Amino acid sequence: MGQRPNHMDPDEFRRQGYKAVDWLADYMARLDDLPVKTPVEPGDVRAKLAVSAPKHGEEFSAVLADLDRVIVPGLTHWQAPGFFAYFPANASGPATLADLVSSGLGTQGMMWDTSPAVTELEQHVLDWLAVELDLPERFRGNGVIQDSASSSTLCAVLAARHRAGGIEALPTLVAYTSEQAHSSVIKGLRVAGIPDDRIRIIATTPEYAMRADHLAYEIVQDRKHGLTPFMVIATVGTTSTTAIDPVGELGWVAANFDAWLHVDAAFAGTASLCPEMRFLNAGLESADSYVFNPHKWMLTNLDCSAFFVADRASLNNALSITPEYLHNPASEAGTVVDYRDWQVPLGRRFRALKLWFVIRHYGVEGLRAHIRRHLAWAAELTDWVKADDRFELVAPTVVSLVSFRHAGGDTATRRVLDTVNQSGRAYLTATTLNGQPTLRVAIGGTRTERHHVEELWSLIQSAA
Amino acid sequence: MGQRPNHMDPDEFRRQGYKAVDWLADYMARLDDLPVKTPVEPGDVRAKLAVSAPKHGEEFSAVLADLDRVIVPGLTHWQAPGFFAYFPANASGPATLADLVSSGLGTQGMMWDTSPAVTELEQHVLDWLAVELDLPERFRGNGVIQDSASSSTLCAVLAARHRAGGIEALPTLVAYTSEQAHSSVIKGLRVAGIPDDRIRIIATTPEYAMRADHLAYEIVQDRKHGLTPFMVIATVGTTSTTAIDPVGELGWVAANFDAWLHVDAAFAGTASLCPEMRFLNAGLESADSYVFNPHKWMLTNLDCSAFFVADRASLNNALSITPEYLHNPASEAGTVVDYRDWQVPLGRRFRALKLWFVIRHYGVEGLRAHIRRHLAWAAELTDWVKADDRFELVAPTVVSLVSFRHAGGDTATRRVLDTVNQSGRAYLTATTLNGQPTLRVAIGGTRTERHHVEELWSLIQSAA
Repeated sequence: MGQRPNHMDPDEFRRQGYKAVDWLADYMARLDDLPVKTPVEPGDVRAKLAVSAPKHGEEFSAVLADLDRVIVPGLTHWQAPGFFAYFPANASGPATLADLVSSGLGTQGMMWDTSPAVTELEQHVLDWLAVELDLPERFRGNGVIQDSASSSTLCAVLAARHRAGGIEALPTLVAYTSEQAHSSVIKGLRVAGIPDDRIRIIATTPEYAMRADHLAYEIVQDRKHGLTPFMVIATVGTTSTTAIDPVGELGWVAANFDAWLHVDAAFAGTASLCPEMRFLNAGLESADSYVFNPHKWMLTNLDCSAFFVADRASLNNALSITPEYLHNPASEAGTVVDYRDWQVPLGRRFRALKLWFVIRHYGVEGLRAHIRRHLAWAAELTDWVKADDRFELVAPTVVSLVSFRHAGGDTATRRVLDTVNQSGRAYLTATTLNGQPTLRVAIGGTRTERHHVEELWSLIQSAA
Repeated sequence: MGQRPNHMDPDEFRRQGYKAVDWLADYMARLDDLPVKTPVEPGDVRAKLAVSAPKHGEEFSAVLADLDRVIVPGLTHWQAPGFFAYFPANASGPATLADLVSSGLGTQGMMWDTSPAVTELEQHVLDWLAVELDLPERFRGNGVIQDSASSSTLCAVLAARHRAGGIEALPTLVAYTSEQAHSSVIKGLRVAGIPDDRIRIIATTPEYAMRADHLAYEIVQDRKHGLTPFMVIATVGTTSTTAIDPVGELGWVAANFDAWLHVDAAFAGTASLCPEMRFLNAGLESADSYVFNPHKWMLTNLDCSAFFVADRASLNNALSITPEYLHNPASEAGTVVDYRDWQVPLGRRFRALKLWFVIRHYGVEGLRAHIRRHLAWAAELTDWVKADDRFELVAPTVVSLVSFRHAGGDTATRRVLDTVNQSGRAYLTATTLNGQPTLRVAIGGTRTERHHVEELWSLIQSAA
């Protein structure tokens, strides 16, 4: 009983903290030399780990050393400059250090009362973003940070379900989304109790955008059958090709039938920081909710998804429960926001801190410069693809994702993918469009420079 | 276009990283001197923030300075040694530095294939925990980290719903929990489409434990009416008093009616690291799922909730969706775990790292020492309360939460609460039991020492 656990006192934390910072700085410095996608096989990492938990504490230096021995060889390096897979989850120095501070402060921001600065900074930086992205007025003062676009979309579904009559109405509710929508849309709807046979998958144009006329037709059919169209989920920047759904037209249809319009701009949304990209916001004034992920392309390390809702009451009423132990004067006076009523979990970390650090470190112009470089390189790569007969572009390049395939067919396309990825110098992923495998080059890494895109194109050409 | 964003290169990251570590070490050193609960009023924090986002980047030192000017005065210090409110969210040096490394690595562990080490380390440390907590064999190999017990419970509900027939079965599903269950239970059930009138709130014993006989009665009644009892949610360590539901008896009832038994041990679960506390695990072999939060009492900074499920297939089948862009050989071969199918969000950070750092830094014996000190101090405080006629204990002290009230009535109890909290030296919260306000002293802070508990008791006595 008299034993004292070996807590790090402030001096020891400082010493070990320096070592952890050094380790990370060294890791950053060698990111260009590590194989982007790890070649480990299933079980390789676990085989290097101790079978049992240690009975007694170990030196911190031993743990850091094991990062090199066990962890790094088993990682695919999302921050490597040759990472062009999925969408980026770009990290930055200021956001990383904000995460450190947030973790050390160890606050819990479930309510305003449990740490006012956590809530007020979050409201404030989300308002900064709403202004800098030029989002419609209705979203100002109505932002919240979620862990992911998946969770944001689920919250939108729950708010829409509430507005449409709540759980009692579930058996007749129908939702609509495009065949190009993200998997989280179906997942969120299922979680909320909408079965697949009441989720209408709307056809798209040849450029993969949801067709508003098909949406209207499906809604009318469902209404005829006594069903309740309650929600339309549109995408600005789909995962496969960054296609843009016609939000204004969809919003007009949705509003006519009292359906909630949610817009998922998880990746592309960040580009609206640049005035010349504001076409991405077209029609947004008709949306009921909107989500984009600063953790994808705005240098704010995972996790940070910015969710905005016009009808805050529907969201809060869907998610609010106040047990006795959470009663407090500020909440009861209604003068504050309690973010637990804006999300599924009760607990929440201090994630606004990293948005604040990022915006202040880079400034809005710095963030724009970050985006514009990627847009320019994607345009260049698009031109290179067009100019090479061996390849064909399969969708227009809207932001910084380039989608193309080998003209020689599926096997040739897959060979290019495998050859590039096995090189260790770059990492791409593929999708399937019209039944054919398609290469995706997503440009957006913090450390990616123009020469990395050139090198990637050389690798692709050699593999062809 | 030629403009380059001001990314921190490794050397700059090292320099600023040292400063951030210094700031945090200094913050830790003065935690004993800060008012535990901040006295700020709504709007005070925002009033100190710039109205607009900065156009150009600022010095990192200016941002750090604003932590002191703007943020710290608006925080309630969850890591202060005088924090006895809610349940603790205790942080530690090794977990804080693991969060730093995790953030800097910036990986995304949605699938094994997207960073094998993220998945395999998580499987491994959760197996370490299952062994050290002496959880039933059925939970080994079946753990996943969630952000919160709320999300874990939601996943349990979704798995149970799936096993009971899925969304089609929703209209007849009935769930059962105790009147002392956490608010996240009702919230999770609502999210999944179970309305309040099909959530049975089971009565408790005088010691606030769910009554198995009442549960059986309610289930039989519901079955008679053609309803489907699909889930029982029990608590080991309730929020108001850390009461322990009779898991074995509840499991026997649940199994008889094919209902899923989920056990929420969010706070108390950590104590099972100590062999003498294993009574907390009684009956767990009949549970289908189990959650406890290392981020509450196991020195692993928020967020880290450990969720174990015996019937992994029901969970995965409820949550799995595989779009084209996520197909990969390892997943298709079935040789790996893809954690995106164990949770609602798709994206996930590398949270296993902090569990690994914590277990290795402290060793299992160190973690036990951490718990045992709190258990001993709670027992002492309980004796002091019992020995003072002005106070009455309202529930047995099971782990490290002491629940009591002023014998002079509600006004006197509330006065004690307010006086202690306004002192700035300690922070307590209250709950309501049998209609009466009740003080809760939750002992579990990383920096809390015995003399802080003594000081708290002096404050309480003076206020009485």
